[in-house]
Amino acid sequence: MIFASDNWAGAHPKITESLAANAGGYASAYGSSELDNAVQDRFSALFEREVAIFFVATGTAANSLSMALASRPGGVAFAHHEAHMLEDECGAPEYLTGGNRLFRVPGALGRIDPAELERAMARFDPEFVHGGRPTAVSITQATEIGTVYGLDQISAVAAVARRHDVPLHMDGARFANALVALGATPAEMTWKQGVDLISFGGTKNGCWCAEAIVLFDLAKAKELAFIRKRAAQLFSKSRFIAAQFDAYFRDDLWLETARHANAMTARLADRISASRKLRLAWAPQANELFALIDNSVAKELQEKGAVFYPWATPHGFGREIGANEGLYRFVTSFRTTAGEVDRFGELIA
Amino acid sequence: MIFASDNWAGAHPKITESLAANAGGYASAYGSSELDNAVQDRFSALFEREVAIFFVATGTAANSLSMALASRPGGVAFAHHEAHMLEDECGAPEYLTGGNRLFRVPGALGRIDPAELERAMARFDPEFVHGGRPTAVSITQATEIGTVYGLDQISAVAAVARRHDVPLHMDGARFANALVALGATPAEMTWKQGVDLISFGGTKNGCWCAEAIVLFDLAKAKELAFIRKRAAQLFSKSRFIAAQFDAYFRDDLWLETARHANAMTARLADRISASRKLRLAWAPQANELFALIDNSVAKELQEKGAVFYPWATPHGFGREIGANEGLYRFVTSFRTTAGEVDRFGELIA
Amino acid sequence: MIFASDNWAGAHPKITESLAANAGGYASAYGSSELDNAVQDRFSALFEREVAIFFVATGTAANSLSMALASRPGGVAFAHHEAHMLEDECGAPEYLTGGNRLFRVPGALGRIDPAELERAMARFDPEFVHGGRPTAVSITQATEIGTVYGLDQISAVAAVARRHDVPLHMDGARFANALVALGATPAEMTWKQGVDLISFGGTKNGCWCAEAIVLFDLAKAKELAFIRKRAAQLFSKSRFIAAQFDAYFRDDLWLETARHANAMTARLADRISASRKLRLAWAPQANELFALIDNSVAKELQEKGAVFYPWATPHGFGREIGANEGLYRFVTSFRTTAGEVDRFGELIA
Amino acid sequence: MIFASDNWAGAHPKITESLAANAGGYASAYGSSELDNAVQDRFSALFEREVAIFFVATGTAANSLSMALASRPGGVAFAHHEAHMLEDECGAPEYLTGGNRLFRVPGALGRIDPAELERAMARFDPEFVHGGRPTAVSITQATEIGTVYGLDQISAVAAVARRHDVPLHMDGARFANALVALGATPAEMTWKQGVDLISFGGTKNGCWCAEAIVLFDLAKAKELAFIRKRAAQLFSKSRFIAAQFDAYFRDDLWLETARHANAMTARLADRISASRKLRLAWAPQANELFALIDNSVAKELQEKGAVFYPWATPHGFGREIGANEGLYRFVTSFRTTAGEVDRFGELIA
Repeated sequence: MIFASDNWAGAHPKITESLAANAGGYASAYGSSELDNAVQDRFSALFEREVAIFFVATGTAANSLSMALASRPGGVAFAHHEAHMLEDECGAPEYLTGGNRLFRVPGALGRIDPAELERAMARFDPEFVHGGRPTAVSITQATEIGTVYGLDQISAVAAVARRHDVPLHMDGARFANALVALGATPAEMTWKQGVDLISFGGTKNGCWCAEAIVLFDLAKAKELAFIRKRAAQLFSKSRFIAAQFDAYFRDDLWLETARHANAMTARLADRISASRKLRLAWAPQANELFALIDNSVAKELQEKGAVFYPWATPHGFGREIGANEGLYRFVTSFRTTAGEVDRFGELIA
Repeated sequence: MIFASDNWAGAHPKITESLAANAGGYASAYGSSELDNAVQDRFSALFEREVAIFFVATGTAANSLSMALASRPGGVAFAHHEAHMLEDECGAPEYLTGGNRLFRVPGALGRIDPAELERAMARFDPEFVHGGRPTAVSITQATEIGTVYGLDQISAVAAVARRHDVPLHMDGARFANALVALGATPAEMTWKQGVDLISFGGTKNGCWCAEAIVLFDLAKAKELAFIRKRAAQLFSKSRFIAAQFDAYFRDDLWLETARHANAMTARLADRISASRKLRLAWAPQANELFALIDNSVAKELQEKGAVFYPWATPHGFGREIGANEGLYRFVTSFRTTAGEVDRFGELIA
Repeated sequence: MIFASDNWAGAHPKITESLAANAGGYASAYGSSELDNAVQDRFSALFEREVAIFFVATGTAANSLSMALASRPGGVAFAHHEAHMLEDECGAPEYLTGGNRLFRVPGALGRIDPAELERAMARFDPEFVHGGRPTAVSITQATEIGTVYGLDQISAVAAVARRHDVPLHMDGARFANALVALGATPAEMTWKQGVDLISFGGTKNGCWCAEAIVLFDLAKAKELAFIRKRAAQLFSKSRFIAAQFDAYFRDDLWLETARHANAMTARLADRISASRKLRLAWAPQANELFALIDNSVAKELQEKGAVFYPWATPHGFGREIGANEGLYRFVTSFRTTAGEVDRFGELIA
Repeated sequence: MIFASDNWAGAHPKITESLAANAGGYASAYGSSELDNAVQDRFSALFEREVAIFFVATGTAANSLSMALASRPGGVAFAHHEAHMLEDECGAPEYLTGGNRLFRVPGALGRIDPAELERAMARFDPEFVHGGRPTAVSITQATEIGTVYGLDQISAVAAVARRHDVPLHMDGARFANALVALGATPAEMTWKQGVDLISFGGTKNGCWCAEAIVLFDLAKAKELAFIRKRAAQLFSKSRFIAAQFDAYFRDDLWLETARHANAMTARLADRISASRKLRLAWAPQANELFALIDNSVAKELQEKGAVFYPWATPHGFGREIGANEGLYRFVTSFRTTAGEVDRFGELIA
């Protein structure tokens, strides 16, 4: 009953098999091997247009270097106030952009409210040196709280970004989970709605370490190559990432693992809905679920072997939390079994 | 006959096996798993004292974040003018220190000359704001050109660093190759001579991606933890690095692969010494060999299937290069076979 | 009827006279002249303890370098959401700290609410690398909206900063205006309440360009010297700043100009209170006044020669603004005459 | 007999008079006043084309922000190994470019050798991410050691910069001294030879604090406006700089003070040439002179009231220095009198 994080789940056997299968022989370094090129082509095929791919070490790196590509003196990027960039990255985006600012935009259920975004961006006149100027907008898909932007919601945010002439970035640490939740294609969920670059995460969905920036504007690829190397994020044995993505996309493994993780969260939601001890905080759409639980009940469940953690809600979420109640997060992954969920279901029945 | 780089060699089977063996189940993320802790202990045992270990994505990251830990406003770090930090890292150390400077120190055969270091450091009065002030000294072991600092040579550099009250860093991208060349223990080659922190590389010696900063001053560990996270270098599924180091150290695999790589270079040196077509540029001590070759001969060898590259020598090396001659680098690894070397030997006989 | 800004007012005759009086002969550069030393002593006398003084070019520099002194990897500084650092400095504090973050704290009437500050700071566990960690708290005295922290209010904010073990910075761009408003001594308004360093501004109060960081912790003076030089803020002919401060403090000129400016704002407030056309937004305490004015009335006044500007209130201020109404700022200075105010009073009568 | 530095000389009476004359009334802030605009036009007239002018606080700021405008990830700027940016700015250029590197280029008598520059720049392939890529070349005019680039020498350096597609910056801390030495016009000494932007210094030549970046490429002016503000270098009462430049250019005051300073150095050179106690290190061309003096003689002269300092020569200058001899610098300024020089001449006769 491990619902702590999708980062706890190790790697899918097919991922490690691929590493073993590609470990032999010699291959040129720094992303220039045949396998690297093949994976680059695979990404282009998936996105239905030529893309530039940059492997990096972490989701934080993908986010921060995306912001660095967009950065300029006095720059301000806009993200939801629950965004990973704002809450969990130790200031890496600010540091790696040389001090650009992140501006917090509110919005219900983890999604940027386009009207709030417009209001926030309108504060920064791009001709007025005192206040700073907009450089980027970033959305998280799936969001930090397990919801998903609909295609029209992405498009609405993109329209605001475009109006202010800045790129739209998607933090896709859980890209696959959102994709299968929407039943959309990668192209539909991204550039067809106005997304300009993506932090494309494979780690949480079954890889060991497979994060890439997907860039649609090829004219900026050279700049990003320098940005990545300068940030010490260019792997020498790059094929070890390529080998993971190769297996990840083969036979739609990535969609399968994401569907499974989402299904396990849905199953967990059913069990919680059926229980009187816990309340769903809101409806989950991907592989994260948030529940309101009496703190003593939570402790008891944890003592009985369920692993899950409280979730800070500095911004609230439009609903009262009882005096002895806490908000808790549950995350499922490719590894979660129906049995795990059902055992938890029995505990809370 | 691939002598291009030890980065071309993929991973040793035991490394990928260890990844497979540790991929299952759940383990806590961000370096807090049991396996992470066990590897941390293994490092402490190896170094014969408690050390703090920080996995990072690349050797450039290990070097740059080591410099960042030592950095301060107006800071200047000192490295050999052939150092990887100066020649091959795209300014990452300057960027990740927020603009500290690297100062080039000369010295024969890839090693910092302690007298030159003293002269260079003496230029910077730590009380004089205009010139900047020393923050660190960095040596590369084995050096960029395949030589190795003797223990007394490390100690001599350390004495200068200590006199100027700054830490001594060792870029150990090829730590194991140097270690077996010297027949020393990790402790003897580092802190016993005055080394304060190490970029400890496993990647070139048979891992996929296994780089760590080894820090002896535990009082600075918390600071480095923030520095690493802020630089987007904290892996979520950290056990995938730990699993590599676990196999790397088990049964002295790392020493075995390093000994093999060094032996292959020695074998290559013998073949070259016996040839009239090539000249050793200097005696190799680890797993890199540099040879002077008539450029047309080099081209012919490459056409016959030998893979090796020219090496720029912006600083010269105290020996004339003929008009049609070039300096070329040959690197061996755990994967190099005696057969490969011997085939090359036949080509040049 | 120029109420645009205290930055419009040129310099007090005694300031330029002092420049002329000190322009002759030779004096050592970079802050080491006799006059520099005398002014340093004068600051120490004013603050009733030895202080270290660092002249810089702008208030933004004083704020940003104060933050840089407090900065550390993953650092977060806390300021009121109307603070100059957050609204008017183009990201200089983030840039000059190498990417530390500024966190917006609310509070009525331009002052940080200590309870809100505690809540904001409590979000950042200094041991948890993901979220970042507190490095400083900054208050603005007088505030951006013309109010003044009472001594006990400073002390209450200082208590929160101290509890989180970070320094308290005071942005004193209008230090003198606040000081005479409170009738306090410099010591009482600063270190006696727990302030650790000050951006001490003379420019708005009659100097040409006279900004200094006043540092109480002398152990940090050397570090700040490097921080200042590295930021290109060390004047060569430093005595041109010293000469201004020399005149500024002589015969309490600075208190006189501040009292005059405040008195002119009070006179303006009286006139506005007596008018039916304008409403005071809140009671002014120093030399800035904010009024709610029907936009067409404002335009008419401006056409008749009154110079004043609208003020953006992104955070609101707990009071409704009418549909056709705007919030406008009026600033008085040493140069403002009673005649100017009275002429404006006649316009609005 | 003060030959310590032109920074010791205070301000010319006409500069302080101009400050007094422009201190009254109100004028809009941050560079938008009528006087600011008039001075901007004056610069354009001087340079015979429209230029963009950015006042900054120090020469170090002018240099560093010029580099920041040219900077890009992995960037390397090239300057003479005696350049102020490399020897006297505490790493400000690296810091304010976010970590771009300065590369030392040798050359006789303080001037970059174009062939050495070509060799240095050729090391950096702009397509190769590992090594970094060229971003700018900077020359110092007059040089740090009192020599002056001839127009053809500037043009030769510019050709190399242009070949590598990077801008040429001129550090003109002593612009006027070089200009009158060459008898050239500002246009001839700059853009007509290929200079793209200038650190234009007035401080050393009679102002209090008057430094400006002169930018010929107007398309980059907006970017530089943000760069300056973000670096806390935008003065609020900007007219205090404008007033200095207004007087500086009026009736060619700046040429007059520069000619005087140069003439005093020439007079000093004559006296030294006539002496047996000192030797000119090389022929001075502007307002700095370097002499080889027996250290005991130097001490004696200093004790008799001559103020001058030793000069470090880390790079040597192609001439032997005797065992007891030192290299000393003498600087003259608008304030230096023939009497001072002659008194010194008597001391050394």
